[in-house]
Amino acid sequence: MRTLASELGGRVGGEVTLAGWVHRVRDLGKVCFVVLRDRSGMAQLVFEAKPDVTPESVIRVTGDAAANEKAPGGVEVRVRSLEILSPAALDLPFPVNQDPGKTSLESILDNRMISLRNPAILSIFRVQNTILKSFAAHMRREGFTEIKTSKLIGTGTEGGTGLFAVEYFDTKVYLTQSPQLYKQTMVASGLERVFEIGTAYRAEKHDTPRHINEFVSLDVEMGFIESEQDLMDLETRILTDIFAAIREENVKDMEAWKAVTPDPMLCAKIPRVSHDDAKEIVSRETGKKAYEITPEGERSLCDWAMKEAGIEAVFVYAYPRKSRPFYTCPAENNRTKAFDLLFRGLEITSGGMRINRYDELVENAKAFGLEPSGLADYLSVFKYGCPPHGGFAIGLERLTQKLMGLASVKEASLFPRDRKRTRP
Amino acid sequence: MRTLASELGGRVGGEVTLAGWVHRVRDLGKVCFVVLRDRSGMAQLVFEAKPDVTPESVIRVTGDAAANEKAPGGVEVRVRSLEILSPAALDLPFPVNQDPGKTSLESILDNRMISLRNPAILSIFRVQNTILKSFAAHMRREGFTEIKTSKLIGTGTEGGTGLFAVEYFDTKVYLTQSPQLYKQTMVASGLERVFEIGTAYRAEKHDTPRHINEFVSLDVEMGFIESEQDLMDLETRILTDIFAAIREENVKDMEAWKAVTPDPMLCAKIPRVSHDDAKEIVSRETGKKAYEITPEGERSLCDWAMKEAGIEAVFVYAYPRKSRPFYTCPAENNRTKAFDLLFRGLEITSGGMRINRYDELVENAKAFGLEPSGLADYLSVFKYGCPPHGGFAIGLERLTQKLMGLASVKEASLFPRDRKRTRP
Repeated sequence: MRTLASELGGRVGGEVTLAGWVHRVRDLGKVCFVVLRDRSGMAQLVFEAKPDVTPESVIRVTGDAAANEKAPGGVEVRVRSLEILSPAALDLPFPVNQDPGKTSLESILDNRMISLRNPAILSIFRVQNTILKSFAAHMRREGFTEIKTSKLIGTGTEGGTGLFAVEYFDTKVYLTQSPQLYKQTMVASGLERVFEIGTAYRAEKHDTPRHINEFVSLDVEMGFIESEQDLMDLETRILTDIFAAIREENVKDMEAWKAVTPDPMLCAKIPRVSHDDAKEIVSRETGKKAYEITPEGERSLCDWAMKEAGIEAVFVYAYPRKSRPFYTCPAENNRTKAFDLLFRGLEITSGGMRINRYDELVENAKAFGLEPSGLADYLSVFKYGCPPHGGFAIGLERLTQKLMGLASVKEASLFPRDRKRTRP
Repeated sequence: MRTLASELGGRVGGEVTLAGWVHRVRDLGKVCFVVLRDRSGMAQLVFEAKPDVTPESVIRVTGDAAANEKAPGGVEVRVRSLEILSPAALDLPFPVNQDPGKTSLESILDNRMISLRNPAILSIFRVQNTILKSFAAHMRREGFTEIKTSKLIGTGTEGGTGLFAVEYFDTKVYLTQSPQLYKQTMVASGLERVFEIGTAYRAEKHDTPRHINEFVSLDVEMGFIESEQDLMDLETRILTDIFAAIREENVKDMEAWKAVTPDPMLCAKIPRVSHDDAKEIVSRETGKKAYEITPEGERSLCDWAMKEAGIEAVFVYAYPRKSRPFYTCPAENNRTKAFDLLFRGLEITSGGMRINRYDELVENAKAFGLEPSGLADYLSVFKYGCPPHGGFAIGLERLTQKLMGLASVKEASLFPRDRKRTRP
C-alpha cells in the first residue's frame, strides 16, 4: 500500500512505502537526504549512504516513518529499500527544483514537458482545475445544462477575419472564435440556460502578454432575463464561488506566487459603470483626457475600483454600438446592452443582451455590412421564436493569469499556442 | 415572478406568470388549449378564444392556476393576459411537436436549429449533460485533476494519417486525434492522475452510424498503477456512477427513447476476456470461426455478456501488438496490456498500460517505423523519469448513442461533423 507524502503525519512509527520523483538530493557524507515529490507534496527520505539516483527519477522506497522536527511536515522516512521505477537522464534543460523566475519564459515553454514539473508552475494548473470545477458546479446549481458544440464552422458569426482555416476533405472550414451561435441556439432550443467549456481560436497576429491564439472559453447563455444587469449579477455569483473555492483549496498554490485571492464577499461590490462614465474616471485618475479605454485605461479603472470597493474589478456597460458585434442589443444614444468585466487591469469577460427578434436582427446584420443569406442557419433560430436572452464568456487563461499575478497569459496555458509556438 | 411548468402543482388557486414556447394549439371553438413548453416541461394554458399565436412563438402569460385532472400534471392555467415575446414564422421545416421518427436523419441534421427543439431530441442532450457531470465528479472524487490541452499539434503521435490540417499563420498544424501525449505528460508532471474533456478529430472517410469526424473524448490517465486491470476497475466505478445518476435524473429522457439504463450494480460484473478468448466466444456464439473481432463479433460478444452477466458490456484485453499504438505496453506472446470496452455492440473505450521506460519506448517506436527524432518532445517525458501509468478514453457520443439506443452516433452530437456535413 502506497502512502502519500501528505499522509506521513499519521504514520509515525510505522513502515511506509512511498513513490514519486527525486526532487532534491542533499548528501552530507554520513547521511544523505532525498526529497521525494508526489502529487500530495514533499517527503524527506533518509539514506545511510548516497543512493544511485538522479534528479527526476521516479522511485519507490520502503522504510520507517520517524518524527523529526526539522523535516517538512515533521516526519521523515528512514529508507530500507529503494526501487528505481524510471531513471532520469542527467541533462535536464534546467533544474526542476529551482525558482522558475530563474528561467526565461521562452525556455519554460520550449521545454514544457519539464517545466510543468516545477511545483510552482504546476500550482497554476491546480488553481485552474479549481476554477473549472467551481464554474461548472455553480452553473449546474442555477439550472444550467452543459453543452458541447462543434469547433468547426462554415464561416464566422462575426465576419470572416481572424479565423484559422482547416482543410476538411474537399472543402475548407474554420476553427470557431466562440460558441456564440450555438449557445444562443441551445437557449432557443428550450434548454434556456446553458454553459460550455471549450476551446476557441483567434488567428490574430498579436504577440503580447495578454494574447494567445487558442484559449479555453467559459461560456454562459441565459434565457428570459430582463437586462444585462441580470448577467452581471450572475457573473458576480460565479466569481464569488470561484474565489471562495480557491481560498479553501489552493492556499499553497497561491502562496507559491505570492498571489492573493480577492475576498469573495467583495464580488457583490464590484462597481458597474457605463462606458462614458468609465472614460471620465480614467480621465480623472490619469489626468489625461481618455477618448477610448486603452489597456492603460483598463488598469487605472481597476485601481480606481480597488480604492472605491476594495476589489480590483469593474463592470463596464453601455459600450458604443460600433464596437460590438451585430447581434448585440442596441440601447439609447447608439449604445448597447453589452458589458465587459475588467479584473486587475485586464478584460476577462465580454457579454451582453442579444437581439432576439428576427426582423431587428436582420436589419442590424445589414447595418453591419453582413449578408443575411450567409447567416441563414443562425437567423433561423430567431425566425422561429427565441426568448429574450444574453450571456458572456470568461477567458480561463486570463482569469488564471490575473488571479495568480502571472506576467504572461501563456503561463496559464498548459501548451500555449502563439504566432510562432506550435509545439510541444 | 416567473413560475416554471414543473412548479405549477404548488400554485393551484394562485395567479401565475409562465413563459415559454407554444408547443401545440388545440382549438375546440368554445375554448382553446395551448400547450406551453419551458425548460422544466409542459403546461396547459386555457384561452376563451383562440389566441393569435403560431407554433414555436415565445410567449409570456399571466393567469390563474386551477386544478384539472385532465391537464398534464393535474393543473391548467386560465389565461388573463398574453404577451408575444418573439413570434415564429409559419413555415417550419417540420412540426417541432411530432415524433422525430417521422423525419429523416438528414432533415433532422440539416435543420438542426429546429430539430433540437423537439423534446425527445433535446432529451438526448440532457442525458449527455448527466454523463459529463458524473464523469467529472467521479474523477475529482478519486483525486484526478482536470486539464485542458492544446488541440493543435505539430504531428500526430500515432503517425500522420487521419489528421485534419490547419493553416496556422505561415505554417501548418493538425487537429489532434487524442490528448494522449499531453495526458501522459501531465501524469509525469507530478499530477499523477488527470482527466480531460475535450474535442478530438479523425479525418476518416467512413460514413457509418458509428463514425463522426469531431467528437468529445472523456480522457483519463493514471500513474502508479500495477496493471490494466486497475484501469478496468476504474472505468467500472465511473460507469457505475454515470448509470446511477442517469437512473436518478433522466427518467423521462430515457423513457422518450424507450431506453433502459443498465443496472449500476451490474457494472462490477462486466466480463473481462482476453482477445483470444473473445474470438473463441464469437466463434462459438455465431457458429462461424472468427479470425478478427468484426462489428458483428462485437455485437455477439455483448449478447453473450448479457446472458452471462446481465449487462451488455464486455472488456476485451490482451490485444495483439500490431493492432495497438507504439506506446502500448507489450505483454507475453506478442500481446499488449491494452483493452477495449464494448457496450451494446460498440467499442466505447480504448485504453491500456503505456510504456514508461525511455529505452523501451524508443525501441518500440522504431519497431513501428517511427523516427524517434520526430517524437523528441514526447520522448523527453520519459527520458527524465515517468511513473508506470495507463489510461483510457470514453467516446461521449458513442456512450450516449448506446445508452439511449440511437440509430446513429450523429444523433448524439449537437452539431455533428461528417465527411459532407459542415453546417449548421
